[in-house]
Amino acid sequence: MAIKSDNLVTVKHRISAEARAGANSHRGGVLWFTGLPGSGKSTLAIETEHKLFELGRQVYVLDGDNVRQGLSSDLGFSPEDRTENIRRIGEVASLFADAGFIVITAFISPYREDRDIARKAAGDLFHEIYIDADIETCERRDPKGHWALARAGKIPEYTGVSAPYEEPEKAEYTVDTAQQSIDESVIKMIEYIDQNLVA
Amino acid sequence: MAIKSDNLVTVKHRISAEARAGANSHRGGVLWFTGLPGSGKSTLAIETEHKLFELGRQVYVLDGDNVRQGLSSDLGFSPEDRTENIRRIGEVASLFADAGFIVITAFISPYREDRDIARKAAGDLFHEIYIDADIETCERRDPKGHWALARAGKIPEYTGVSAPYEEPEKAEYTVDTAQQSIDESVIKMIEYIDQNLVA
Repeated sequence: MAIKSDNLVTVKHRISAEARAGANSHRGGVLWFTGLPGSGKSTLAIETEHKLFELGRQVYVLDGDNVRQGLSSDLGFSPEDRTENIRRIGEVASLFADAGFIVITAFISPYREDRDIARKAAGDLFHEIYIDADIETCERRDPKGHWALARAGKIPEYTGVSAPYEEPEKAEYTVDTAQQSIDESVIKMIEYIDQNLVA
Repeated sequence: MAIKSDNLVTVKHRISAEARAGANSHRGGVLWFTGLPGSGKSTLAIETEHKLFELGRQVYVLDGDNVRQGLSSDLGFSPEDRTENIRRIGEVASLFADAGFIVITAFISPYREDRDIARKAAGDLFHEIYIDADIETCERRDPKGHWALARAGKIPEYTGVSAPYEEPEKAEYTVDTAQQSIDESVIKMIEYIDQNLVA
């Protein structure tokens, strides 16, 4: 019989995804919201977070409010800086998912290539969610008045006006916020999460 | 009487720290381990994580294994890059603590100024934990053989050999891993966490 105690060196091992899922009653995952400014990403993210929290899930939202002034405070809005911003968020979201969280990211993330880098960071845990509203709808809402400023030429490189938005070609899920209310959209998101991270 | 429903715009609000603490039965916090290479930071972090997980805490370890190949993959080991690496980890740890996690970071983080930046990011949720073992002890252990390589001049800017380590002057807690076993040190850490994040 082998003497197991012969090896007294502590073996380093991390908590497995299965163990975390068992404790939380759901798996970790990245819900990567992408869409035009004004499409409802942030609102839907925060509302979905509340509903998930009520349901006892471990959930967190990464958005401009908690990333741009901290982790990405050294970055501006040039194409290179936008790419690096999205890369970092992809890595951080991947860490949260690894920790067992349902993490919702709410960033325009207009470039397919950048989103694919985020997808690669999180692997199987990545869910690209297209928050789909047409330009006319987003511009009519204009919750922050940014569309109007961009049309007036006062915000450079504004997605949808003077910078491109590349629609997802392989989103795991699409939420139509032009036709649906926020409440209806939240219900759809919860259904999607139940099916993909809880079942 | 004011008609509250007059304002139908959805008010964005995040889950409060109190609500998360209520759900998890503990508060979020950053346990920032600092110490010489070989002092036991990583081992103690992983062992403490296991014990906390068994106790039902939400806990996660950030260390070189999950940060250097991802979030900080663009950074090397120059003083500037080390500083930026620690800055990013401080920001990510702050996000985890905000999400209600007990997050343990295991990095040498040799400079006081860098650690103070991490402290600032997390505010009241920051706990600097000095993993205290003298150079002789760390060098004798040399778990990865790096001390020997550094003494032979084969690793440049190695903390403790050819780069400085600035001991904490205001650590919230010190763990003496030269005199204590890992098991004893884990017990001390759990006690500290119980007193500061659970009570």
